[in-house]
Amino acid sequence: MGDVFEETVAEMRDRVTPSPAERRRLETAVAEILERTRQAVEEVDVEADVLQVGSTARDTWLRGDRDIDVFVRFPPSISREELETHGFDIGRTVLPDGEVEHAEHPYVSAEWDGYDIDLVPCVAVASGSDRRTAVDRTPFHNEYVTERLTPELATDVRVLKRFAEAVGVYGSDLRTEGFSGYLTELLVIEYGDFRSVIETAATWQPPVEIDPEDHAAATFSDPLVVIDPTDPRRNVAAVVSAESVARFQHHARALCQDPSTDQFTPVVPAPLDVAGLQSHLDRRDASPYAIRTMAPDVVDDQLYPQLRTTERGIVTALEAHDFEVLRSASFAHETAVWYFELTVDRLPAVARHVGPPVHVAEHAAAFLDRYEDTEEVYGPFIADDRYVVERPRTPRDAASFLRSDAVLDAGLGKDIRRVFDDSYDVLVGTEVTGLIPEFGCELAGFYEPRP
Amino acid sequence: MGDVFEETVAEMRDRVTPSPAERRRLETAVAEILERTRQAVEEVDVEADVLQVGSTARDTWLRGDRDIDVFVRFPPSISREELETHGFDIGRTVLPDGEVEHAEHPYVSAEWDGYDIDLVPCVAVASGSDRRTAVDRTPFHNEYVTERLTPELATDVRVLKRFAEAVGVYGSDLRTEGFSGYLTELLVIEYGDFRSVIETAATWQPPVEIDPEDHAAATFSDPLVVIDPTDPRRNVAAVVSAESVARFQHHARALCQDPSTDQFTPVVPAPLDVAGLQSHLDRRDASPYAIRTMAPDVVDDQLYPQLRTTERGIVTALEAHDFEVLRSASFAHETAVWYFELTVDRLPAVARHVGPPVHVAEHAAAFLDRYEDTEEVYGPFIADDRYVVERPRTPRDAASFLRSDAVLDAGLGKDIRRVFDDSYDVLVGTEVTGLIPEFGCELAGFYEPRP
Repeated sequence: MGDVFEETVAEMRDRVTPSPAERRRLETAVAEILERTRQAVEEVDVEADVLQVGSTARDTWLRGDRDIDVFVRFPPSISREELETHGFDIGRTVLPDGEVEHAEHPYVSAEWDGYDIDLVPCVAVASGSDRRTAVDRTPFHNEYVTERLTPELATDVRVLKRFAEAVGVYGSDLRTEGFSGYLTELLVIEYGDFRSVIETAATWQPPVEIDPEDHAAATFSDPLVVIDPTDPRRNVAAVVSAESVARFQHHARALCQDPSTDQFTPVVPAPLDVAGLQSHLDRRDASPYAIRTMAPDVVDDQLYPQLRTTERGIVTALEAHDFEVLRSASFAHETAVWYFELTVDRLPAVARHVGPPVHVAEHAAAFLDRYEDTEEVYGPFIADDRYVVERPRTPRDAASFLRSDAVLDAGLGKDIRRVFDDSYDVLVGTEVTGLIPEFGCELAGFYEPRP
Repeated sequence: MGDVFEETVAEMRDRVTPSPAERRRLETAVAEILERTRQAVEEVDVEADVLQVGSTARDTWLRGDRDIDVFVRFPPSISREELETHGFDIGRTVLPDGEVEHAEHPYVSAEWDGYDIDLVPCVAVASGSDRRTAVDRTPFHNEYVTERLTPELATDVRVLKRFAEAVGVYGSDLRTEGFSGYLTELLVIEYGDFRSVIETAATWQPPVEIDPEDHAAATFSDPLVVIDPTDPRRNVAAVVSAESVARFQHHARALCQDPSTDQFTPVVPAPLDVAGLQSHLDRRDASPYAIRTMAPDVVDDQLYPQLRTTERGIVTALEAHDFEVLRSASFAHETAVWYFELTVDRLPAVARHVGPPVHVAEHAAAFLDRYEDTEEVYGPFIADDRYVVERPRTPRDAASFLRSDAVLDAGLGKDIRRVFDDSYDVLVGTEVTGLIPEFGCELAGFYEPRP
């Protein structure tokens, strides 16, 4: 097993390492961009230093990556307003065709000479924990990582990134809730090489806590905690979900047991067509429902958390009405979809409603006041030490519930609530085949689920 | 309100107190029976004293009651065998037509001169806690109660017995799980009169503990604990269920709020006919099922606990298979019946099965071994930090489950198991109307439930 693992990793190292020509071309591009940025700083006549950051700066970029991140770092005396105007002026001077992107603060982004360039203003703070903008820590990360990554370790970071990507946990965006590049770098530095990361992850017992500088200054309830070496109050893995940790662990074990370059390639099931979907519906014989709206026009980091919040809210509301959910999912392209397979979608005309213990006099009296002499309820009667009634159930079927305003109170995300207010469709049973072709891939993932 | 309460109780006192003629007739009968028993003791030539016990001895019998209980008390030196033979000989001498009844030990019972006579052997022990047979405590109870009950208190015991009977909680048999005569006597002695028992019970906060002699020598987890004044290790109310306590409390409050002699009369709904039952089935639109066997030929104290155990066992098994039970009941006459209204009786072809957390390596490996590469399951996949599969569900419908051998494993009582082994029927949906007319009363109680 040892040999095969090493051979596999060796093969992957070859595949992910940029070629010498690719590297030379990047270095030339970086040098030119840095030079032009420094000139722009002089032209705009402000005090600022210019530095390259990110994976191309740290030599942990994957073959084929074309990202160059350049920071313009202003002195701490700068105001937020100046940061934004100067940053914008410099960005536009260097990249006249650049677009302004709005993250926590604006920066300029452009394609240039085949590369994706981000030109980002930040503030020169004293340490990672003193940050004034969201990106002020990045230069410290850069420094910490470049000081510690040998070329061999850098290569193993590349292999780890490719592996995490293949198993669906690479990226700290809120859709993936996975591992950031910085996190993969810290793991390789901490454990010593790719193999050790994999073998250790295979035995993780969450919560896993790693504190490279042994300086944690806060506690965290996340399943994976990696204290930022440049900021003792930050968990670098805060965004990593329990599911991403579990998924990484599962595939780490699989790689140990059966090392193969196949494990570095994502498995993407073929999209389902209508017949394929129908055959799953028939085989499972559950009660499928979908709610479909136009997707709200927001960035993924806003969209996906809201999709999930909405999904959880509707599942909770369905189950509160005794419509048990077998499995649910949410997807978005042009439209946004919440998909529910119910165990049961039609219920009796009466529902059991358990009241207070008989001995709690005040509640008991209120319960009797409400239900005694009420024609439409059965009871009150006593079961164990409590009053019980069986009262008319509304709604009795899931479609009525999903079409009612009650769905709007199910804790929808705010942008989702807005599109629901416009209009939404409820697809019942075989009508869900109307989600093909838009969601053929997602439904294939739903009906061919993998770890 | 006070006046109406007092007037109601005064009226009830009149109704439950035996007439002078009735009382004289009873006294004559008792005197004769005691005399004949003493002669029989002499004839059999054993040492034993003869005493009257029970409600007629304590003057707490209700008008119309015709029970005379006579104990033949042997010295402690007697062996179990002698107790039984001498008891039997004396009983047969006094009551030549008597039947031998088998409780914990045999005794002779007969109708004589319009009275129901029980002639019971017991052992003269030093105290209630030293008993050798189940009834050895009774003479101590008799002594304790007769020393303390004035004629006024005795009358209030009668009223309390009638009230408990009307609301369905009189009797320490295992069908009723209610209040014994001795318990009603102790409650009146403890609280002072009928009204105080009712007013105090209206505010009970179970567990309620009463210890008249302040000598409890054990702890109990029952909702009502009344330490036996003649045995510090015994709870006189041990058999009283939480439901009986709640029921008594409910009706005690109702009597306080609206005192009326009607509250001393049981409410018995008219038996349901087929049309009446069908109309409830239609209105509720649940999924009714019944299992029916021949009733096992055992006494009620053995039958009813087993009916309930069996009912609970089958409900648990149904719900373990996701067939939610809206309400259940069990009845017996010639046949025994378990009746279940289900919320849902047909389920999807797959069931969600949650496996171990991914990080628990050994269980995770076993789970994957079992389900990976298994055509018929969906998954394994990961949800939160756990493996999950969706696997074929059997049975998918409640009738299949109830007709399967799985029911036999559902913790049936032992005599019930025996009749199940002979044969049982499963009634599905409208077929339950076949329970009419045998269970018309019980089904009326089920569909017109009261506290």
